Amino acid sequence: MTMTANLNLLTPTPSAYTYPLLIKQLLINAMSLHGEQEITYRGQMRYSYRDFSQRIGQLAHALTALDVGAGSTVAVMDWDSHRYLESYFGIPMMGATLFTVNVRLSPAQILYTLNDADTDVLLVHTDFLPVIEEIRAQLPHIRHIVVLSDDGVLPATSFDVAGEYEALVSSAAADYDFPELDENTKAVTFYTTGTTGDPKGVCYSHRHIVMHALATALSMCSPMGEQRLHRGDVYMPITPMFHVLGWGFPYISLMLGLRTVLPGRYLPDVLLKLRETEKVTFSHCVPTILQMLVTGADKTGQDLSGWKVVIGGSALPAGLCEAALAKGMDVFAGYGMSETGPVVSLALNPTHAELSKQDDVRLRSSTGMPSLMVDFRVVDEDMKDVPRDGVTRGEVVLRSPSLTPIYFKKPEASEELWRGGYLHTQDIAVMHADGMVQIVDRLKDVIKTGGEWVSSIEVEGLITQVPGVSEAAVIGVPDAKWGERPMAFVVAAADVKPEFIREHLQSHVQAKRISAYAVPELSRICLVAEIPKTSVGKINKKLLREAQPT
Amino acid sequence: MTMTANLNLLTPTPSAYTYPLLIKQLLINAMSLHGEQEITYRGQMRYSYRDFSQRIGQLAHALTALDVGAGSTVAVMDWDSHRYLESYFGIPMMGATLFTVNVRLSPAQILYTLNDADTDVLLVHTDFLPVIEEIRAQLPHIRHIVVLSDDGVLPATSFDVAGEYEALVSSAAADYDFPELDENTKAVTFYTTGTTGDPKGVCYSHRHIVMHALATALSMCSPMGEQRLHRGDVYMPITPMFHVLGWGFPYISLMLGLRTVLPGRYLPDVLLKLRETEKVTFSHCVPTILQMLVTGADKTGQDLSGWKVVIGGSALPAGLCEAALAKGMDVFAGYGMSETGPVVSLALNPTHAELSKQDDVRLRSSTGMPSLMVDFRVVDEDMKDVPRDGVTRGEVVLRSPSLTPIYFKKPEASEELWRGGYLHTQDIAVMHADGMVQIVDRLKDVIKTGGEWVSSIEVEGLITQVPGVSEAAVIGVPDAKWGERPMAFVVAAADVKPEFIREHLQSHVQAKRISAYAVPELSRICLVAEIPKTSVGKINKKLLREAQPT
Repeated sequence: MTMTANLNLLTPTPSAYTYPLLIKQLLINAMSLHGEQEITYRGQMRYSYRDFSQRIGQLAHALTALDVGAGSTVAVMDWDSHRYLESYFGIPMMGATLFTVNVRLSPAQILYTLNDADTDVLLVHTDFLPVIEEIRAQLPHIRHIVVLSDDGVLPATSFDVAGEYEALVSSAAADYDFPELDENTKAVTFYTTGTTGDPKGVCYSHRHIVMHALATALSMCSPMGEQRLHRGDVYMPITPMFHVLGWGFPYISLMLGLRTVLPGRYLPDVLLKLRETEKVTFSHCVPTILQMLVTGADKTGQDLSGWKVVIGGSALPAGLCEAALAKGMDVFAGYGMSETGPVVSLALNPTHAELSKQDDVRLRSSTGMPSLMVDFRVVDEDMKDVPRDGVTRGEVVLRSPSLTPIYFKKPEASEELWRGGYLHTQDIAVMHADGMVQIVDRLKDVIKTGGEWVSSIEVEGLITQVPGVSEAAVIGVPDAKWGERPMAFVVAAADVKPEFIREHLQSHVQAKRISAYAVPELSRICLVAEIPKTSVGKINKKLLREAQPT
Repeated sequence: MTMTANLNLLTPTPSAYTYPLLIKQLLINAMSLHGEQEITYRGQMRYSYRDFSQRIGQLAHALTALDVGAGSTVAVMDWDSHRYLESYFGIPMMGATLFTVNVRLSPAQILYTLNDADTDVLLVHTDFLPVIEEIRAQLPHIRHIVVLSDDGVLPATSFDVAGEYEALVSSAAADYDFPELDENTKAVTFYTTGTTGDPKGVCYSHRHIVMHALATALSMCSPMGEQRLHRGDVYMPITPMFHVLGWGFPYISLMLGLRTVLPGRYLPDVLLKLRETEKVTFSHCVPTILQMLVTGADKTGQDLSGWKVVIGGSALPAGLCEAALAKGMDVFAGYGMSETGPVVSLALNPTHAELSKQDDVRLRSSTGMPSLMVDFRVVDEDMKDVPRDGVTRGEVVLRSPSLTPIYFKKPEASEELWRGGYLHTQDIAVMHADGMVQIVDRLKDVIKTGGEWVSSIEVEGLITQVPGVSEAAVIGVPDAKWGERPMAFVVAAADVKPEFIREHLQSHVQAKRISAYAVPELSRICLVAEIPKTSVGKINKKLLREAQPT
């Protein structure tokens, strides 16, 4: 990058406040305007933003008593709760780092990440104590463990605990004077589980988080006539708070002063009940959870109108999108990764263009429009932009104010991630003339067959449109003649036959929407009872591939 | 402020892009999604965002040829034009400083500010050449003068000119490689004319401008159901671009990719015509201009429905607000100063609460709710927050990411502005329980009578509600018995008598809305043909006071 000499820097007068972009600043407006706004945990516990503000001070005092200070790392293992929300703010606001542990990892992976992150203190829900029992002896760096329980009871453990969260917090003093920090202070860390090697830690500073909240919220609030987010919304996360900071939405919710509903552990009937009783209007989840919600509402006949839900984590299949719309939900895709803050694009319609039903579904299921401030490029191997023709494929590379600047303790992987000054997503996409983007595959999931590239995601989307199909996964399998061939795993009702799926795909070949190479042979369309998922609910293609004879 | 040691800073990998908050980043999303969007100058010249992007590169090349580089200051004297918009971006993006000259100042003041700002190059519209003729000899620091004309004709001048803007720009190369700058680089400067002493220069960095655009836009886009700004809007400034950066809205407009209409010199009939032909939906202006627009539309019978207009610069009188609503306009107040970026609060209704017509007018005319990220306090002389009771008065002090960090070359005034780490506005306000703010006066305009403080703004607002009254100004005049007494200057229709005004005010005394001390004696209610204004259209109370016998 070109860098000119700094001939012209503004030097503030000594008394001026230079306003570092800190997480605590996200609360200023909400506390001034919405102090009586409500936060509820499962509808069972309720308190106000004012109470919340007092509690994060108490949490900071309680953690200070456990020797937590600037530079400490505090790990949290919890379901979505008011405690987690307090940790999102109170821990980084102290100058410490919040580590959101992925509780769905194996004990060995949890052990690895807790040690790799240099965890000093662990806050752990009773549900996860068995895991800690197993690995406590191998966590020498952890000085204190605080137990989180809904009933205040401290279960017997074989290791020392500092106490129960609620008891520690509610007995602490409230008037904690949160320090002024450098905005580049590490605020949060968590691990991304790739398909190879150890989990890698990504890190975000206070500035990253504040910029993500502002740019993402503005991207969602500004499209004409369809406020996907506004200050009257009631928010309930359905992407776990341990998963990429709940996609950043807990910070956005409190910045905008929204009523906030924390649902605890995700149980479809509990989520549907909370939506109804708490009048939830805004959520976000992965397609697998959306499928459960739609199925659950089908059973009870619930109408889900007025529920805006961002779908991310993996592509939103058109069939599932249609099913959700039929239930009255306003679903639309968002795109991002652990490394990207995460949200970098959203399937929005900025100027409220009129769309046919088919185009509407296509838009909602698309990768969408880059968010504000995001330099979103689709490039060839020489880092040149591919033509904006909706056809030419390239890798998505990014710049934004909210991308991870490193993989923790992994300098080589960090440089590889950022080679050429852009963050490399390893997602393959096309860009349309109007700037809208469509991810067509992961670099590693593209199927190369007969000299053509077939998008596994595209074929999956078409298969889910077959009536009775609820889920599909397509992988490439070795083939002597063609190099690779697509193979489909399909979860469907009893009366769905592989022939129907092939016929449906063939009709799209005739309509020239996909290549003839993209249609799996009948023997490569497998009806299965379920499709394996990763710890964050994505289809586990690595496992599917490993299960194939080579 | 407490500052802890930086134990925990995130260090980016060498190849990572750290994303400084630069004005050029505001264009990224717009150029990607809205390249064909239109910018028009008076409906006579039209080009696309893509053309605009090319032109700012050409402008940068043209200015480079005039020795403009990082650290240079380029002054602009123009009406609202595409040239001005190009300067808003192209000049700071080069690393130079844009100086927006207040063309309504006297030649002596213009001379003072051009020299004080260390101006290197001046871009001046033909309309202002007579002023420059007068003072050119006293501007030794200015190396080049570029003339801006609508017809491309270069008038004869007694001094050397480098050429005509359009000729220089259109003949320059387009592919300027705008540098990566430090985000704290000085981007713009302009002068605020206080009531005492020389004009004072305020300065904003790239970061200040980007943060103002994001936080202000989000504040306007996020209230439920009443998107005062969205990506389908058509924008036309009616606060001059030389006045506090057109309140920051030209940057916001291009960030969101809005169709943008630049109206040239403000002539009420031209503005009304452009609104209609260009289908303008969003503007901003001072009350004086609003009054002209309402009067103009009354004459022609024009309906102004669908026109959202932010009113600032001085308080929006309730009577004028009602008149504008009757014409179909969606008017609402905004608050800020030259020193504050400027917007720090807006008269919005965040959760779409239902209001009576009277409460609606009161809200729209209020100082409103602090914008996102703004730490907006009303404090007593010991910097303690006054009670949020809607009654207790205090000074507004601020922190935000977009406040001027200095008065240029005035270290003492800078320290005075920022004493105690908050920017002191010298505005007196009350804060309500719900966090909404009402400015009641300027510190220096408060009238102290019989031991009570009377708000001149409040009395003015009530007077303008009297049918036939179009404008009112209230000042304090010396009084032997009471210390000071209010004196009102009123512009009204021929049949309005001072008695009507007194009766109207007395009715508000009986309703306990104002103190009996606030009602001027009959002899102190003067019907006048006009009320003097400052260079930016505010009531000139200084002049009114000076005209009184002491």
